[in-house]
Amino acid sequence: MDERITDMSQLLSKIASPADLQPLSDEQLTQLTQEMRDELVRVLSIRPAHFASNLGVVELCLALHLTFDFRKDRLIWDTGHQIYPHKLITGRYSRFDGIRTRGGLMGYPNPQESPYDLFMTGHAGCSVSCALGLKVGDELASRSVPEPTPERHSVAVIGDGALPSGIVFEALNNAGGLNKNLLVILNDNQMSICPRTGGLARCLDRARLTNFYQDSKRTIRDMLAHIPLVGGVAKDALCQLRDGLKAFLTGGMLFEEMGFRYFGPVDGHDLPTLRRWLRELKDQKGPVLLHVLTEKGHGVPQASQDPVTYHTPPVFEKVGPERTILSLKRGGAKAYTDAASAAIYQAMQDNPQVAVITAAMCQGNKLEKVRNDFPDRFFDVGICESHAVAFAAGMAKAGTRPIVAIYSTFLQRSFDQLFQEVALQNLPVAFCLDRAGLTGPDGPTHHGVYDIPYLRLFPNFAVMAPGDELDIPGMLKFALSHAGPAALRYPKANLEKVERSVAPVALGQAEVLEWGNDGALIAFGSLLPNCVKAAEKLKQEDGLELTVINARFAKPLDRQTILQAVEQLPFVITIEEGTLEGGFGSAVLEAANAAGLDTRGIIRLGLPDRFVEHAERGELLADLGLDVNGICKAVRGQTASERTVSSPN
Amino acid sequence: MDERITDMSQLLSKIASPADLQPLSDEQLTQLTQEMRDELVRVLSIRPAHFASNLGVVELCLALHLTFDFRKDRLIWDTGHQIYPHKLITGRYSRFDGIRTRGGLMGYPNPQESPYDLFMTGHAGCSVSCALGLKVGDELASRSVPEPTPERHSVAVIGDGALPSGIVFEALNNAGGLNKNLLVILNDNQMSICPRTGGLARCLDRARLTNFYQDSKRTIRDMLAHIPLVGGVAKDALCQLRDGLKAFLTGGMLFEEMGFRYFGPVDGHDLPTLRRWLRELKDQKGPVLLHVLTEKGHGVPQASQDPVTYHTPPVFEKVGPERTILSLKRGGAKAYTDAASAAIYQAMQDNPQVAVITAAMCQGNKLEKVRNDFPDRFFDVGICESHAVAFAAGMAKAGTRPIVAIYSTFLQRSFDQLFQEVALQNLPVAFCLDRAGLTGPDGPTHHGVYDIPYLRLFPNFAVMAPGDELDIPGMLKFALSHAGPAALRYPKANLEKVERSVAPVALGQAEVLEWGNDGALIAFGSLLPNCVKAAEKLKQEDGLELTVINARFAKPLDRQTILQAVEQLPFVITIEEGTLEGGFGSAVLEAANAAGLDTRGIIRLGLPDRFVEHAERGELLADLGLDVNGICKAVRGQTASERTVSSPN
Repeated sequence: MDERITDMSQLLSKIASPADLQPLSDEQLTQLTQEMRDELVRVLSIRPAHFASNLGVVELCLALHLTFDFRKDRLIWDTGHQIYPHKLITGRYSRFDGIRTRGGLMGYPNPQESPYDLFMTGHAGCSVSCALGLKVGDELASRSVPEPTPERHSVAVIGDGALPSGIVFEALNNAGGLNKNLLVILNDNQMSICPRTGGLARCLDRARLTNFYQDSKRTIRDMLAHIPLVGGVAKDALCQLRDGLKAFLTGGMLFEEMGFRYFGPVDGHDLPTLRRWLRELKDQKGPVLLHVLTEKGHGVPQASQDPVTYHTPPVFEKVGPERTILSLKRGGAKAYTDAASAAIYQAMQDNPQVAVITAAMCQGNKLEKVRNDFPDRFFDVGICESHAVAFAAGMAKAGTRPIVAIYSTFLQRSFDQLFQEVALQNLPVAFCLDRAGLTGPDGPTHHGVYDIPYLRLFPNFAVMAPGDELDIPGMLKFALSHAGPAALRYPKANLEKVERSVAPVALGQAEVLEWGNDGALIAFGSLLPNCVKAAEKLKQEDGLELTVINARFAKPLDRQTILQAVEQLPFVITIEEGTLEGGFGSAVLEAANAAGLDTRGIIRLGLPDRFVEHAERGELLADLGLDVNGICKAVRGQTASERTVSSPN
Repeated sequence: MDERITDMSQLLSKIASPADLQPLSDEQLTQLTQEMRDELVRVLSIRPAHFASNLGVVELCLALHLTFDFRKDRLIWDTGHQIYPHKLITGRYSRFDGIRTRGGLMGYPNPQESPYDLFMTGHAGCSVSCALGLKVGDELASRSVPEPTPERHSVAVIGDGALPSGIVFEALNNAGGLNKNLLVILNDNQMSICPRTGGLARCLDRARLTNFYQDSKRTIRDMLAHIPLVGGVAKDALCQLRDGLKAFLTGGMLFEEMGFRYFGPVDGHDLPTLRRWLRELKDQKGPVLLHVLTEKGHGVPQASQDPVTYHTPPVFEKVGPERTILSLKRGGAKAYTDAASAAIYQAMQDNPQVAVITAAMCQGNKLEKVRNDFPDRFFDVGICESHAVAFAAGMAKAGTRPIVAIYSTFLQRSFDQLFQEVALQNLPVAFCLDRAGLTGPDGPTHHGVYDIPYLRLFPNFAVMAPGDELDIPGMLKFALSHAGPAALRYPKANLEKVERSVAPVALGQAEVLEWGNDGALIAFGSLLPNCVKAAEKLKQEDGLELTVINARFAKPLDRQTILQAVEQLPFVITIEEGTLEGGFGSAVLEAANAAGLDTRGIIRLGLPDRFVEHAERGELLADLGLDVNGICKAVRGQTASERTVSSPN
């Protein structure tokens, strides 16, 4: 560690666990918040990570750990990308340097790292459900212990971005009904990665504006004080009315209607006030919601002014005094996301019936230009993937051509809508699945490795993956002209190009890049360039003439081309960046089996039946035998075994 | 048609389309409502179908069709089981007799039957999303037409049971934000198949109680009239306050907070009043919610008094005058649901750490006795499958042993929670998937045919299916002692028993019922009894000695037993009541392929890659070659081809 860091972290480095916070004075705690922010800036100048959201919850994190004892109490940070301050004070400061790198800390909560992390999360909205489940479970578990145990408090911290997620509503409804002691903290930073949208956002904005209504609030308060409590007016009814008015005056009626008691809004950067509120609410009975206002990027001017860019910014090139970020390392290679967003933009230009729906991933999907140039055909529905898909189905039913742009892993939230609203109705919705495959440093919650098998379950669906950047425009065009639902999945990776005269994209047709008689590599999607390189290497080094096929469709499969390879060639290796259970390779096996072919020559490469950890995508592909060397090795394994079989020495 | 019917339907039989309603007088419309209810009673005395919910919406259905023109306007009945009155007046009266039978009308909306049905539905909660999508899509589509087109109104009718579904909240939030003209009708019958639960239910109950608060409401109204509009109080703020108070006084604040204007509650059986409201609201701008109070089972005393039983009652044995149901045809054979609920009850008795979570399917899963005897360990979360699973994960994390009892098809709503909250954390949640396979008369929305492939995607999951009723207790016991997540799936079918000394259930172990050298039948779950019968028949008629294996686990697969069969026997037929894409048979193919075995002897029987229509389960199994004859045929196809291969004439 260099000197600068040692200086900066004179307090932070001594916090081995939350218990070490207790003796600190208010001044020391203020210093600690500075040190924590310094540490965030320092690490972010080394590598990209979640930034602005973490800067925003430093005080909230300290206040929570100062008020509760999370060795027994329960704390869930919703989504989990704001977990860094929590990690810094729960014994992981010394390892913070390595966050998001192979073998290092995860960028999300991870129970394997610390007992203070209860659930490994990454998808938004489940905190209230889990915290309520923990509460009910703890109560039930405590019954089996003979002596009475102290209450285990249950706390969920959820951002206003995650709040509109359907599951949150389901959980609030259930919590309101069960009336258990549960503290939900609404961390309201007015952002949902992208600026938040929807009716709920306006409702929260009203709560922020309470000062504006201060006068009328006073009037109403005075009136309330003078409502007669006798004379035909039931007292209970009146109390209820009064509570209701109170909630209305502070903007929390929505939560009150669900059965929560609403408190706030409170300044989320005023640590003493936050602590006072938490102490007050800690032993309240029944479900309680505390509305905390925070600033995303707090303490770093550039981040608070542009929280979208600074959600996960590029590495900082130059940092000035007082955490002033002087420049970001911009540029770099173009990614699949760029090619997809360009194709989407083109489609919007070409056809006024095309519309785009995203679930708070306008920035992640690089759709800002689409949003800005076609605002009336661009719909950001917030972190509401289920609704996004059913909404798109409605649009398609009306005759328009919606494109749903959602990350592969988050589209899992729409599984049932893909089934009922889209596939069952055979509606022409085009799906652009970004981040399909291994997403690298985000880890298992973000790897999009199940979409091939789950999309091919549904009748009517066309399931595609571009073999390289040149496939993207044609595939999107195909999806937008196809009579039923169609999806294309592409990786979180830099663009790659396989030089060739690109065959037009046609339903269920693979593209044969090369035909050689020694065996075949059939790639579905992102690993095609690796296959091409492997084939070249094997030609040069081993003199092998391999067939290389760009499968393009997992459904419908190009039976003719693929089965021809299976039938005629000594081996066929299928390659996909997705789980092997039921994936593309299994589709090939199924087709070969149905055609009565011998499948012993089929080898399936893909992801194993375990959760793959976080690391750079390239590192993971190499580990899993999916890089060029891995593919060569698989081929050589085949040719060796053939030699063994055909020419025993 | 017999005379009674002709007499009864003098008006109804003349309604060829909703246009024929317009000339009817109020008296005639009243008569029509009677005739429609008579027709519902008549059909329900022939066969089981959805009943109470349809009786409840007769007037609402007429009012909607009298007010709107759904040849151009858009109407979505959420969930869809209350679609019968709509079917009766949209040209399907003459075919109503055959509803829910093979080749007859579906019991849910079906666009293939009528242009008045826009989406084939069955899963709850998507109406608002679809109606909003239609609205936005219609607006966009109308732009491509040169001449101005009249507005296409968009209406969603949603029950209070479906209301807590997360996707509804997501859609309300989006609608509130977009501020499109959209009419949502809340059909509030205080039921969610089972009695509704949760904070929202209380909020709706408050709305019902407005009469009680009449006095205090008057007081507040008087006060509002006297609030000064000058003197430091901003008029806008005051108007907003006044609107808010109005909404509070009528209980609709929740919707107002989301950006909807709330109206009601209105008596849903008072047709003239309903029509007046709908006319009034038809051309309102922005999103509007009309709260309609209906009585489930209205017009049939037995049904309105016991709407749970009469949701889908058994056939009526005896009907008296004035639609009095004198007796139901009770009894009949025990179903898999009975065996599962008995096993669940036993588990609750044996272990105080076991709890049960259901999503409004207390009755469907026959869990009333569990609910009544263990009320503090029974959780009905409403139609909120996503929350149910995350909530259970929280309970499991706290050390208890939750059982989640959800129909296979509805568990699709929890796909992402199965992934993140359960499998990724490797938490011991036990899943009881009822209605797995072909559900018969409900049709494609309800067939639970994807769970095998989607559950086996996830690392850590044990995926089981009982081969007969004797497997159920052991499998549930196994699930409740297993260290990770485990699911068992069973059909909507009468119990069947394969007489044998039942082997204990152990992780990844199949049960060999018979070993014969002529080939193998490997059943995963419900079709095992058919396999046993087919093997007996083939022994008697063809002299074949077949191996019969009760696979029990699709994951982990019993590689040893199954691959031994693949290796040693001339053929292996896998049989499952689920889609063939990525299912159990594919798991066998994958395992055999990975072991380097020849898979040409493997034949996979299961459901094809298309949506299977409604009909009796037995009829469908026969159609699809999954009954005893179909299995025999598949075997004979194998033995014939072997003979052809081995002894060419």
